[in-house]
Amino acid sequence: MTPAQVRSRATGPTAGLAPGYTQANLIAVPRDWAYDMLLFAQRNPKPCPLLDVTEPGDPRTVLAPGADLRTDVPRYRVWHDGALTAEPTDATAHWREDLVAFLIGCSFTFESALVAAGVRLNHGRNVPMYVTNRECRPAGRLHGPMVVSLRMIPAAQVDTAVRVTALMPAVHGAPVHVGDPGALGITDLDHPDFGDRPVVEPGDAPVFWACGVTPQAALMASRPPFAITHAPGHMFVTDVEDTTYQLL
Amino acid sequence: MTPAQVRSRATGPTAGLAPGYTQANLIAVPRDWAYDMLLFAQRNPKPCPLLDVTEPGDPRTVLAPGADLRTDVPRYRVWHDGALTAEPTDATAHWREDLVAFLIGCSFTFESALVAAGVRLNHGRNVPMYVTNRECRPAGRLHGPMVVSLRMIPAAQVDTAVRVTALMPAVHGAPVHVGDPGALGITDLDHPDFGDRPVVEPGDAPVFWACGVTPQAALMASRPPFAITHAPGHMFVTDVEDTTYQLL
Repeated sequence: MTPAQVRSRATGPTAGLAPGYTQANLIAVPRDWAYDMLLFAQRNPKPCPLLDVTEPGDPRTVLAPGADLRTDVPRYRVWHDGALTAEPTDATAHWREDLVAFLIGCSFTFESALVAAGVRLNHGRNVPMYVTNRECRPAGRLHGPMVVSLRMIPAAQVDTAVRVTALMPAVHGAPVHVGDPGALGITDLDHPDFGDRPVVEPGDAPVFWACGVTPQAALMASRPPFAITHAPGHMFVTDVEDTTYQLL
Repeated sequence: MTPAQVRSRATGPTAGLAPGYTQANLIAVPRDWAYDMLLFAQRNPKPCPLLDVTEPGDPRTVLAPGADLRTDVPRYRVWHDGALTAEPTDATAHWREDLVAFLIGCSFTFESALVAAGVRLNHGRNVPMYVTNRECRPAGRLHGPMVVSLRMIPAAQVDTAVRVTALMPAVHGAPVHVGDPGALGITDLDHPDFGDRPVVEPGDAPVFWACGVTPQAALMASRPPFAITHAPGHMFVTDVEDTTYQLL
């Protein structure tokens, strides 16, 4: 499927769809909260690498001319006062004229590069994601813990995975942790906070990358009056080739 | 000299001072303009890679605990309505309670890495900087052309210079142009808009990096009511080791 086809048709997780194209996390907040969100992203570039920020109320992005951010994400989450209130597949009825949308890099984007480098990826339909014990650096009224995605990777390939992803800082860059889930406050890998449980093979090491669901954890902790996000794993697929974000 | 010694003593350009430590461009604007500036930086990450953004009125930065942004830059520029009105060595009398300071990566930071890689650098006391014909992507009320710094580099070492600096996106990353100054609208290399004229050896190629003076060109073009910046080449020297910003 092309990126445009995924945007118009997909209703499930987008990992592996439209390979070669950049996927993005979405968080849209009222203009009154946009400075805090923009500063939160600047202060936490590993979980929140910004790919684009829209004009207030405008559902268009330079990442996919012709796309509509109100309809082209497979599944949305609507938030009131930090609580999840709806999970529609179309956000048009919830959109507001004062919403500023933030498109944040997604680790699905570097999976093509990992596979091209020979790294075996073995997760299920959706990658497992966990809320950690690491606090983000706050910005204005926004604060909350860092969320990470997990990939189980053969121990002998961890170095390649680090090197390849380090060259893609716009889609989270190098891992934030390799090895002990407990060091991140994760007590049970089999019960992720979002996504599917991991598939573990003998000799695999757990490798954690900062995750673009982090702003959703900040919503829960900071309780802004309103927000719209993507549903975890259900990304906005852009028209930008993922090699665009490879530094070398 | 240590970073703290440079901050307290230097009055001239800082290239080559406190080697191994990150240097930063400064632009401080009223809170009312901070969202536009933050968005301008997000939309123009090559000239404006943000290292830190301060709380309104607060002259402190995480990049150098104990430093004071009102006094620790060797020379400042004070701007009213887009016009330069003063160039003091101490900005305390001009500081305002609503100023938000943006610290932006500086290409001086990658010079140590270039030298370590065997690249010959040959500029004078201050690097030459030029206003180009490339417009930045506007953000709110802020718009203006990209400014670049120039280094004349032996043609056979350009590939090394590209590779080394590509790994440091927080301090402008890879060059934006190699070769023809005319393609950037630069008609006379010997008359830079800021800094010293270049030192040219036979066989050198002109290599241009996006420059953190770009926000000053945006001030001139967009005319916000007030701003304080560093004077070109007179950087804020941080306590952060420059290897911090090397991705690999």
